[in-house]
Amino acid sequence: MSATWRDDKFHDECGLFGIWNHPEAANVTYLGLYALQHRGQESAGIVATDGHNFHLEKAMGWVADVFGPDRLRRLPGHRAIGHVRYSTAGSSNLRNAQPITATFARGPIAIAHNGNLTNADALRKDMERDGAIFQSNSDTEVILHLLARAPAGPLEEQIPWALGQVRGAYSLVILTRDALYAVRDPYGFRPLTLGRLADSWIVASETCALDLMEARVERDIEPGELVVIGDDGLRTYRAAPAGERLQCVFEYVYFARPDSVLWGRNVHTARKELGRQLAREHPAEADIVIPVPDSGTSAALGYSEESGTPFELGLIRNHYVGRTFIAPQQITRDFGVNLKFNPVRRILEGRRVVIVDDSIVRGTTSRSLVAMVRGAGALEVHLRVSSPPIGWSCYYGIDTPTRRELIASGHTVEEIRKYLHVDSLGYLSMEGLRSCVARPDSHCYACFDGNYSEWYGEPLDKLAMERTPTRAPGRP
Amino acid sequence: MSATWRDDKFHDECGLFGIWNHPEAANVTYLGLYALQHRGQESAGIVATDGHNFHLEKAMGWVADVFGPDRLRRLPGHRAIGHVRYSTAGSSNLRNAQPITATFARGPIAIAHNGNLTNADALRKDMERDGAIFQSNSDTEVILHLLARAPAGPLEEQIPWALGQVRGAYSLVILTRDALYAVRDPYGFRPLTLGRLADSWIVASETCALDLMEARVERDIEPGELVVIGDDGLRTYRAAPAGERLQCVFEYVYFARPDSVLWGRNVHTARKELGRQLAREHPAEADIVIPVPDSGTSAALGYSEESGTPFELGLIRNHYVGRTFIAPQQITRDFGVNLKFNPVRRILEGRRVVIVDDSIVRGTTSRSLVAMVRGAGALEVHLRVSSPPIGWSCYYGIDTPTRRELIASGHTVEEIRKYLHVDSLGYLSMEGLRSCVARPDSHCYACFDGNYSEWYGEPLDKLAMERTPTRAPGRP
Amino acid sequence: MSATWRDDKFHDECGLFGIWNHPEAANVTYLGLYALQHRGQESAGIVATDGHNFHLEKAMGWVADVFGPDRLRRLPGHRAIGHVRYSTAGSSNLRNAQPITATFARGPIAIAHNGNLTNADALRKDMERDGAIFQSNSDTEVILHLLARAPAGPLEEQIPWALGQVRGAYSLVILTRDALYAVRDPYGFRPLTLGRLADSWIVASETCALDLMEARVERDIEPGELVVIGDDGLRTYRAAPAGERLQCVFEYVYFARPDSVLWGRNVHTARKELGRQLAREHPAEADIVIPVPDSGTSAALGYSEESGTPFELGLIRNHYVGRTFIAPQQITRDFGVNLKFNPVRRILEGRRVVIVDDSIVRGTTSRSLVAMVRGAGALEVHLRVSSPPIGWSCYYGIDTPTRRELIASGHTVEEIRKYLHVDSLGYLSMEGLRSCVARPDSHCYACFDGNYSEWYGEPLDKLAMERTPTRAPGRP
Amino acid sequence: MSATWRDDKFHDECGLFGIWNHPEAANVTYLGLYALQHRGQESAGIVATDGHNFHLEKAMGWVADVFGPDRLRRLPGHRAIGHVRYSTAGSSNLRNAQPITATFARGPIAIAHNGNLTNADALRKDMERDGAIFQSNSDTEVILHLLARAPAGPLEEQIPWALGQVRGAYSLVILTRDALYAVRDPYGFRPLTLGRLADSWIVASETCALDLMEARVERDIEPGELVVIGDDGLRTYRAAPAGERLQCVFEYVYFARPDSVLWGRNVHTARKELGRQLAREHPAEADIVIPVPDSGTSAALGYSEESGTPFELGLIRNHYVGRTFIAPQQITRDFGVNLKFNPVRRILEGRRVVIVDDSIVRGTTSRSLVAMVRGAGALEVHLRVSSPPIGWSCYYGIDTPTRRELIASGHTVEEIRKYLHVDSLGYLSMEGLRSCVARPDSHCYACFDGNYSEWYGEPLDKLAMERTPTRAPGRP
Repeated sequence: MSATWRDDKFHDECGLFGIWNHPEAANVTYLGLYALQHRGQESAGIVATDGHNFHLEKAMGWVADVFGPDRLRRLPGHRAIGHVRYSTAGSSNLRNAQPITATFARGPIAIAHNGNLTNADALRKDMERDGAIFQSNSDTEVILHLLARAPAGPLEEQIPWALGQVRGAYSLVILTRDALYAVRDPYGFRPLTLGRLADSWIVASETCALDLMEARVERDIEPGELVVIGDDGLRTYRAAPAGERLQCVFEYVYFARPDSVLWGRNVHTARKELGRQLAREHPAEADIVIPVPDSGTSAALGYSEESGTPFELGLIRNHYVGRTFIAPQQITRDFGVNLKFNPVRRILEGRRVVIVDDSIVRGTTSRSLVAMVRGAGALEVHLRVSSPPIGWSCYYGIDTPTRRELIASGHTVEEIRKYLHVDSLGYLSMEGLRSCVARPDSHCYACFDGNYSEWYGEPLDKLAMERTPTRAPGRP
Repeated sequence: MSATWRDDKFHDECGLFGIWNHPEAANVTYLGLYALQHRGQESAGIVATDGHNFHLEKAMGWVADVFGPDRLRRLPGHRAIGHVRYSTAGSSNLRNAQPITATFARGPIAIAHNGNLTNADALRKDMERDGAIFQSNSDTEVILHLLARAPAGPLEEQIPWALGQVRGAYSLVILTRDALYAVRDPYGFRPLTLGRLADSWIVASETCALDLMEARVERDIEPGELVVIGDDGLRTYRAAPAGERLQCVFEYVYFARPDSVLWGRNVHTARKELGRQLAREHPAEADIVIPVPDSGTSAALGYSEESGTPFELGLIRNHYVGRTFIAPQQITRDFGVNLKFNPVRRILEGRRVVIVDDSIVRGTTSRSLVAMVRGAGALEVHLRVSSPPIGWSCYYGIDTPTRRELIASGHTVEEIRKYLHVDSLGYLSMEGLRSCVARPDSHCYACFDGNYSEWYGEPLDKLAMERTPTRAPGRP
Repeated sequence: MSATWRDDKFHDECGLFGIWNHPEAANVTYLGLYALQHRGQESAGIVATDGHNFHLEKAMGWVADVFGPDRLRRLPGHRAIGHVRYSTAGSSNLRNAQPITATFARGPIAIAHNGNLTNADALRKDMERDGAIFQSNSDTEVILHLLARAPAGPLEEQIPWALGQVRGAYSLVILTRDALYAVRDPYGFRPLTLGRLADSWIVASETCALDLMEARVERDIEPGELVVIGDDGLRTYRAAPAGERLQCVFEYVYFARPDSVLWGRNVHTARKELGRQLAREHPAEADIVIPVPDSGTSAALGYSEESGTPFELGLIRNHYVGRTFIAPQQITRDFGVNLKFNPVRRILEGRRVVIVDDSIVRGTTSRSLVAMVRGAGALEVHLRVSSPPIGWSCYYGIDTPTRRELIASGHTVEEIRKYLHVDSLGYLSMEGLRSCVARPDSHCYACFDGNYSEWYGEPLDKLAMERTPTRAPGRP
Repeated sequence: MSATWRDDKFHDECGLFGIWNHPEAANVTYLGLYALQHRGQESAGIVATDGHNFHLEKAMGWVADVFGPDRLRRLPGHRAIGHVRYSTAGSSNLRNAQPITATFARGPIAIAHNGNLTNADALRKDMERDGAIFQSNSDTEVILHLLARAPAGPLEEQIPWALGQVRGAYSLVILTRDALYAVRDPYGFRPLTLGRLADSWIVASETCALDLMEARVERDIEPGELVVIGDDGLRTYRAAPAGERLQCVFEYVYFARPDSVLWGRNVHTARKELGRQLAREHPAEADIVIPVPDSGTSAALGYSEESGTPFELGLIRNHYVGRTFIAPQQITRDFGVNLKFNPVRRILEGRRVVIVDDSIVRGTTSRSLVAMVRGAGALEVHLRVSSPPIGWSCYYGIDTPTRRELIASGHTVEEIRKYLHVDSLGYLSMEGLRSCVARPDSHCYACFDGNYSEWYGEPLDKLAMERTPTRAPGRP
């Protein structure tokens, strides 16, 4: 067994939360991060301030484990921002945890970032040549340096100047002694929502964080918008000219929590619609429809409703995985997927089964699940995927493998079907996917179609892209 | 907000695992406990032996957090037993974690226990008068002392002698230098299953633990049976005469994992049948059926199938609670149930909703969930419970509140309906419950009907029962 | 380098402290243990009680590291006992830390022990045959079992009955709901002193613990005396008939702190007298006298005064060793003794040097120190030892190697001199040692002369003694 | 009792160690820091590199506690630098631990610093205005920024350029991929020594670190010298023009380890000479001379030798203080100095006693010690101090109180004598002090005479100096 078993899924890069003017700002931020835990399980951090001193607490681990009463007590003040970071197998490291803080000419500053800059390395090298020193590898530190070097002026002008230098995806919350800033990149790759709780302003990656504390959802922060929240209220600025929207469609497919309302649409109902469309595109003669829980459940329900094939629970998921399930390294067998899923033989035996999953990345987990379902006595296994084949890596803040590892990058659907050992395999079509989201032209589909955003000019040859996968997007 | 928010559910007292003759006995036990994590999240422990030295590792926390590679390396040997213990708000304490070990005339011994002895205090006092010293409050230590005091003879005779002194519920695994012993009390309150994995024998509380490692399920350990596993194979003894079976019906209702096969019946399908019967007994004019996830999901599916009312996901559950979600104590609002559940407004709004839950203990969570569903716009809320009203405490190994706290103890269904603020409330009938389990007369229904087992003779006046609720069962 | 470098010294087995009737009993006990830290650095523990509940805190490590404010707050009550345990390289283990607690017919009991029972194994086996179960390997648990099995009667009668069964060395403090008991074995091997602090009674292994808190030293607990301290004051009983005194002379040589007054005599002045006598017995033509700090300092001062040879500091000791100095295992050179001592070349160069140490066990450290002093330029090295050659193991509570490892067991002084590579070697004579202690016949000299106490009847053949060194004393 | 009892001593700010070309560079650095532990007990850190990747491990605590085998294994490579930092009561904080690392145009860099810059705040503000961001409050980060901003050229030119901007005291070790740099400020306030161990070069704050590993002491790094050690050997540069030497005389008085050879002179023998001179200046009619151990021991020995009054041990020191002795806050009495020292009544009673200490800062500890010695029966107490009265704060890297708190700042010797309640008080004269060091004009005596170095130009009014004592030196 590999040392740590991991989902064959894309992994989001972060969740953000910020609050202004609440007597228990850190406590509320803690609750907000807890609701955003699905966006990142590696590390959690909060910066709080009384308007003068900045207090930072961050650590590796889940929100509920990192923040006990003692730690929260060390975070006094009426303003706070927080961050959860995704978990990777390898380089997880406290140094990369966020928020990050520094002092510059205006005093202390804290920043939390969801996304990925595509020109961070170049900017970093430029600034190093100009005398800058860096403490981490993170893109986010590049933004801090740009802010420190911006022409004199109010920060609401310096932020647009600094962000004008960067390319890529970012939703940011920034805290200074004077204000809480929230901003999305001009294409709006990553979500960011504005809310109110009595006299407090809140920003959060998803509405589920606002729901937890029964805050009112005000509206999305717009692509390219900079919102500045201070004691004199909220002001809004253009950080970049309005342009094409490229909101990540994968938030609907997998990342966001089903109870969130994303860009005007509830995620669960969107996923059900993906499942319905999938049923229309790829019907199956079967006895039952089962999800790969929990991410496939909404789509499976839609597939069942549309097809009339009964919905069932044929795979039970163990939720007690914890942050750090380390499989004993010397154990003789590879029980990988068994740690997370167990089949219900009584349901599967003698049945023709449709399995609905939201996406396939490398195909490894799917293959194991199919074998598991067959082992439990299924007569036929028909796999249905509520998104198109993933053929391209993401450069906008999602942890994806290189193209080479994506099963749909080098293989036809029929080849994949054989590899997975299923009787039939159906992916949702691109047209089907577009038909299920409210404003189809406002999304990024690059992981499905390779159409990376126009403004990232220079085409890169494919090999280079493969070699430095997280930095160098391009169109082949 | 109360310091720690907890489910309004019964809590099981433990999961057991034991393995004989496996080169990685502790590693396999770790996997087994991981599959049994739902039976107890407070502490986890493993004892392993090479037949000579005994090594014990136990700690507070989840299995995956307690046992890392270092700890497992400290558990060499071909035989092991393990234990997970349930979580209580108050007295959680490493001293009460299991397995417990001691040395007696035969050498080292380790024991792990699922259940509760009703005469432990009396036995303890007797033995103290006779010179015994005790290190903990646990019932299990009483069993160790009885074993040490049994008349000379082989342990397979001493175990029945010792267990002949105790009253109550117990499934036990015991490890000595020579053998692994597994035994259930004569009524069979708690489950215990026998399996094989190549040349190894395994015992486990539920079949899901065997499934994880792809071990073969052999059969249940019988009530009153003592199984002795040694290097010369498996022998079986009667630890007590066969009598009435009182297998805990609540294992079907809530405790067991849906993928387990319990006493010959798959739990998920049993729960679906409870839901179907509930639909027959208490139909509702409604638009959707939603479960309280995850424990109500199987029954809700059954209810939906039987009634034809569509199954939906109207409540989303946050699984990242962690072992120790401590709500900030000073926070101004009580967000209790919000930490675990969030409604999907888009699904609930304008709908007549049937909520299916498996049981109601105090009613506090149900009341909050109903308010949450109404707040999300539901027109009507009809609560359906896939078990009868709980009117009695359990004395057989389940952590239950005193009768006074059980909402169904002092209130009619109509009173409960009003308290919960639902449009209609339907509990499954006793007859309905009995009709859904394979052999209705082989179960204990005491928490529903107060019929505690015959052999616990002396009726106790109600006040006494209330004062010492976990020790003094009785028939009113 | 061996993984952990250790002194070539005997190691004491424990320090005891107890206090009755102080509003901050645990805090004062903490201070007392801190003063007794030299008697044991492995683990520290405190039990405190308000007369009803018993609270126990113990952990591996130094007193000042184990007990922070949080831990002390968990120890409320007006009565407390505490214990520090010596550090061994191998089997250090929290299970063996003290005090140990249990519940028996009289309620909770806590006990702390300095010493070693020579018949513990036999007693343990007897009681196991009679149905007892044991949680640890410690002698002290045997005493608890004996107390639990004593004939009915007040505890001040049960304690003498129980201690009547055991052989060996013990100073004990025992805490129950009703009283604090302090007792020394009939030979008085280990010290125990009685003190007062305002309205509180205190017992402690050495007077330095009383000095720290400015308590008044009342008197020694007598060999065979049982002191019972309760709310009605102090009573004294004979736990055993008065007999020969065998107070450990090594307490004067090395164990006790120089500022303590032990059995009527200040330790520093006793050690100086040993040094003076050593100078009379083994003068040396030398330029300077240097101690092996700190244990040889007092004797070196005496040697210097008597001989007129100037006292100097030629070896500087690093006191920052910490509990757990682990030498990097892979390091190429063995810097062993360098970690603790560094020579002062300017002092040693060109000089004829007398090194004074208190004792030599295996000889390994001495050999390294001599080489170090020579390496720093000493012309001659004359080693003087302020105690006789150690030829026998101790069975009365001191961690000693087997006879085989004692350099003086199988070698003549001349052979040792050659091994250590010194120009001359002088040990204090037995007569010299006896002449320096107040009442020479009241001490045990067994490690020097092999005269183990009479009452341990059965002579054991030498090989057996060597094989089970800590349990089986005897006269060859 | 104050929460944490601390010595009434100056506290040094750091110890440095660096090694180039050793297969176990981190392990050797660990040993070196262990020998330098007396220079800082707050935190310890090591950076190691294989010439490409840099690995940093640092934590609060003692060297032996911070660095276990696991941590050292995470520090591969043939080059390393390390740092120990002094302990302050208040702002101890991992963020200020060293070495600090960053990446700049040349790649990764690590730096460790002993000293204090007097113009750090001004430089910092300048660089912030110019776009720099800072992660800590430490002076050392200022140096890193200056290096990053130095004009293009080799680092051996950039380092002098950067250090040309700063004022104050610094000994530095710097590690890059290409070389190990060691440099002292032009006045040479803090020590730094060069050594060899087979094929490795070593730099260390004191020779005792070289002795531990039996490395050869080569020579001191000169004031203003920059030594560059690379794979092609050692080169030396002038970082600043040679000028007046201001080597800290307090290193002889108290900071350095007695076995070190500092600026050509062994510290123990220098201290003995201070004691001899003190005896000549301030003889006393007394029976014994006792040191305040361990810092007063060398001088007391010199005093005894010169005066002929016998040397004795009248105060015993407890070395088990640990890093974090936290006195129980609620305890009723203040046992402050008792935690560290205990008098030997038998030695002191009826005697006229000379106590020798190395220095007096606030006078609080001295006062308590005097009372302790009197309480133990001393007839007379004569306090002798082997350095002049401390009337001025230090701005060159030593943690000193403000002038207001220095007892000798506002009081005459007679007033101090009365406050300390001694029969006579004698401080070493400035002339006496100068007469005992090899080259009297090469030292800084500013804490004794207020003659801060010339180059720090602007005189500051006294009040300002008092308010911001660690930044604003000046001549009154």
